[in-house]
Amino acid sequence: MNKYVLSVLVENQSGVLSRISGLFSRRGYNIDSLSVGETEDPRFSRMTIVVNSNYQFLDQIQKQLNKLVDVIEIQELKQEEAVFRELVLIKVNAEEAKRASILEVLEIFRGKVISVSSEDLTIEMTGDNQKVDAFIDLMKNYGIKEMVRTGLTALGRL
Amino acid sequence: MNKYVLSVLVENQSGVLSRISGLFSRRGYNIDSLSVGETEDPRFSRMTIVVNSNYQFLDQIQKQLNKLVDVIEIQELKQEEAVFRELVLIKVNAEEAKRASILEVLEIFRGKVISVSSEDLTIEMTGDNQKVDAFIDLMKNYGIKEMVRTGLTALGRL
Repeated sequence: MNKYVLSVLVENQSGVLSRISGLFSRRGYNIDSLSVGETEDPRFSRMTIVVNSNYQFLDQIQKQLNKLVDVIEIQELKQEEAVFRELVLIKVNAEEAKRASILEVLEIFRGKVISVSSEDLTIEMTGDNQKVDAFIDLMKNYGIKEMVRTGLTALGRL
Repeated sequence: MNKYVLSVLVENQSGVLSRISGLFSRRGYNIDSLSVGETEDPRFSRMTIVVNSNYQFLDQIQKQLNKLVDVIEIQELKQEEAVFRELVLIKVNAEEAKRASILEVLEIFRGKVISVSSEDLTIEMTGDNQKVDAFIDLMKNYGIKEMVRTGLTALGRL
């Protein structure tokens, strides 16, 4: 099992997401993460799907996706041929004594503070999967109150 | 019609996304954007769904979502009670003569350059919906080659 990233250009209309996610779930494959948003052309959306799978299934699912009329283009994005980024928002425990130390880590990771209270900091950070995972691990030491990740998004390098 | 943001905590398992997106599409409502990723607890994922709708439908869909066994918690996130962020990756035309001007805009928006070639720049930028839209509008002047957005993600302020 490996992680594969599919970038799928689709018509921006009702039901596309449901048809695509249905293709995966009917085969019992869990989507690791999915993000979908508008593109430069409002008629189309781009989905980035991360799936934990094997190559045989990946080939099969690409063929099935291609049969859907709403699907315009599918690209498998490989590590060396694309840039990958994810956004994470974290609300972390930050009493005054800990705050300086959290801000130090944040600076190393080029993250930003979005909101501050007397008890916690809300932080935004972006990076590839590994960087985001490493940052989250560090934040766990302070105590994560709440966290949300967008899932990976990606653009081909070419 | 207004934009509503739902933050939905779900079991991290096959089929959840398909069941949830199916609820929307069966009623003919298009999901504007959706992002789903892991939370601080690997058993759960958090989805952020943006839907263009009216309040009556929103109430209805929340009740329907609550009936799904995989759905643990639903929050409607309102403007003043949450922080909203989106990540956009843009590949923009950037011959040498234009580059300085693009980098200026990028600095104002606190964006980052991810990758450079002789013809284009790949840029990452985060912000709330309005900021991201404004940035994209500015980049259109230079010529956007490719673009991908994660869709909005959000955390409650409390």
